[in-house]
Amino acid sequence: MAFTEFRPLDEKSLIEYIKTVPSLYSKLGSDLKVKEVGDGNLNFVYVVVSHAGSFVIKQALPYIRCIGESWPMTKDRAYFEAVALRELGRLNPEHVPEVYHFDHTMSLIGMRYLEPPHIIVRKGLIAGIEYPLLAEHMSEFMARTLYFTSLLYRSTTEHKRAVAEFCGNVELCKHTEQVVFSDPYKVSQYNHWTSPYLDRDAEALREDNVLKLEVAELKSKFCERAQALLHGDLHTSSVMVTHESTQVLDPEFAFYGPMGFDIGAFLGNLILAFFAQNGHADQVNDRKTYKEWILRTIEDTWNLFHKKFIALWDEHKDGSGEAYLPAIYNNPELRQLVQKKFMEDLFHDTLGFGAAKIVRRIVGVAHVEDFESITDASRRADCERRALEVAKLLLKERRKFHAISEVISAIQKLQS
Amino acid sequence: MAFTEFRPLDEKSLIEYIKTVPSLYSKLGSDLKVKEVGDGNLNFVYVVVSHAGSFVIKQALPYIRCIGESWPMTKDRAYFEAVALRELGRLNPEHVPEVYHFDHTMSLIGMRYLEPPHIIVRKGLIAGIEYPLLAEHMSEFMARTLYFTSLLYRSTTEHKRAVAEFCGNVELCKHTEQVVFSDPYKVSQYNHWTSPYLDRDAEALREDNVLKLEVAELKSKFCERAQALLHGDLHTSSVMVTHESTQVLDPEFAFYGPMGFDIGAFLGNLILAFFAQNGHADQVNDRKTYKEWILRTIEDTWNLFHKKFIALWDEHKDGSGEAYLPAIYNNPELRQLVQKKFMEDLFHDTLGFGAAKIVRRIVGVAHVEDFESITDASRRADCERRALEVAKLLLKERRKFHAISEVISAIQKLQS
Repeated sequence: MAFTEFRPLDEKSLIEYIKTVPSLYSKLGSDLKVKEVGDGNLNFVYVVVSHAGSFVIKQALPYIRCIGESWPMTKDRAYFEAVALRELGRLNPEHVPEVYHFDHTMSLIGMRYLEPPHIIVRKGLIAGIEYPLLAEHMSEFMARTLYFTSLLYRSTTEHKRAVAEFCGNVELCKHTEQVVFSDPYKVSQYNHWTSPYLDRDAEALREDNVLKLEVAELKSKFCERAQALLHGDLHTSSVMVTHESTQVLDPEFAFYGPMGFDIGAFLGNLILAFFAQNGHADQVNDRKTYKEWILRTIEDTWNLFHKKFIALWDEHKDGSGEAYLPAIYNNPELRQLVQKKFMEDLFHDTLGFGAAKIVRRIVGVAHVEDFESITDASRRADCERRALEVAKLLLKERRKFHAISEVISAIQKLQS
Repeated sequence: MAFTEFRPLDEKSLIEYIKTVPSLYSKLGSDLKVKEVGDGNLNFVYVVVSHAGSFVIKQALPYIRCIGESWPMTKDRAYFEAVALRELGRLNPEHVPEVYHFDHTMSLIGMRYLEPPHIIVRKGLIAGIEYPLLAEHMSEFMARTLYFTSLLYRSTTEHKRAVAEFCGNVELCKHTEQVVFSDPYKVSQYNHWTSPYLDRDAEALREDNVLKLEVAELKSKFCERAQALLHGDLHTSSVMVTHESTQVLDPEFAFYGPMGFDIGAFLGNLILAFFAQNGHADQVNDRKTYKEWILRTIEDTWNLFHKKFIALWDEHKDGSGEAYLPAIYNNPELRQLVQKKFMEDLFHDTLGFGAAKIVRRIVGVAHVEDFESITDASRRADCERRALEVAKLLLKERRKFHAISEVISAIQKLQS
């Protein structure tokens, strides 16, 4: 059987396909087993295992899986995911699964299978599991990715070439524009929320002029500012973990955008996880200690990111990065001034984008299991409303925050 | 003779070339005359006339004309110039000369000849000639170009496609980065200034940490923010005028960048012209009235730009522009709020970029005839120093200005 044209695979035809690809087939013995495991919103994902080895096959179909053919989405996203996985993997080999195979025609990626006990971070957060290295690893991943793909490290020539290539991932960018920056602030058939409890809250968002002004500014940065290569969808379901390992997945939304969008996505989803804890608390576990761990992880992630990012900047200050030429910026006092301003702007972007990601998960099309798994709607709504209040505060007042500890205090104040 | 490979033309071979291009040759009779007229920094420009018609031929050579082969510059710039001329011309047919012919291989554009009395605006400003329609026409050109190529009017899909294409004009962007945002703030072999008078002033720029912090922010916007299609070099020598006609030329630096860069280029060069007037004053003409006209033109250009840009926005508020969706932003109070913020940010960008353009013309590689034509070095240095002072003020304090009239007052204070 030849695979010279795109067609969606199933468990049976996938085996036929694998037999035509030596780089995949050679990893396996004849006893291979296939299991569809995709529980994400977009794609089909198969785990392929035999006694000799294993891998994952991910295929993009020309629509959004969780909605169906009524919401088309280009299968070219698989190309940008493969390019991004390789680039992120080159920069962070310990935190990105290896790509074994990419088939443009079939919109299909073959990559490392992240064996158990790897689980999706979000599921770990719902289960109340602490991951002592999560902040360390994620801050490392974000610092290296964002630093090395920005003009702090790169020449203008390299930068514009990469920006141009990822302009091709426009369909996915448009999707984010719609679901993050537009739909939550207007009436949309796709929006939903814990009704009737949050009806007034959702309406208040649509009527909040100051909030919409801030969202417009963030959207404009998202659309126009090609600052670094973003993962583009760096929430807690795009990361798998064990106690020792942290692996970033699913960069099909990758493009050159504002750094704060990725950092905000991760921190914003940790904030969602925090506010969901009251819904998961029971008589056995009040989740108080766990909530403190989440807050510590938010604080550590930003502070470690800050430290690592600045360390990379200092290390490569005499390199060929275009943004701050050594001949102009290499006096220590000026470099400190420049770095302080850069990190403060990035902090404010991070808070703004993080807040936008919180809002859209409560009143937009795609919700998060952190809240959805709280079966009592009234209790769920109470958790969601507190998260919304933090998000609104951060969107409107983010420029008044100067340290992540101040954000933690604001979250604590709104928790009960 | 065939022209299947690039080669530099001269007046003789140009005639042979024209004979091979029907769209050009058909405009002329057999009595054609060729004259090289390029007095710009970059290219060779020929005027071709006969009794039957005329056109201009502009050829890009793979280096910068005014410096020579020691400063290479891709001849692909002719491609981006042709694309930009057509796009700018489509949006502003009355203010951009028509392109008759483009030859990619030869890096050559054939376009309308702007017949006398058209002259370069800068020469008119030096001669003390008032152009009553200049502010009206330039504000129209800038408002239409910047509005219609931004996400205020365009969809994300159109925008990213165009951004990606102009990423290819990276060599010219790099040139601007160097000569506008870098060289003036460091020791560079290309820098020069009216020495010894401005030695201390040039040194002070290189030692001014606050100034360099601001320049870094502007450079980052220039490199990263794809807000609209820019002309990219919109100074007063890129515009030809008569009393009735205003024509924008030479967009080889075109790319998607921050709107304020173009507006700032034009206003910054008017400010240069203003401060040069004391050097042109003599017993016959003290230039006082003319200086007032320049200030009025600066003020009118911004105010008319503001008015026209907002009028376009209001007119197309229900269109397919991606930035402010009607379903979210179409209440009059919110739209006013959004427009006010947008225009204030743009005003501050304009002042910052305009100031950077002033600085680079006084201590960088390429100076302006406004000052260069003042033969008394001490008198010239006095004019230049006042312009530098305004530029430094605008760079550092631009966020404190809220109306162009405040800028005019600051200029007046520093004029004597």
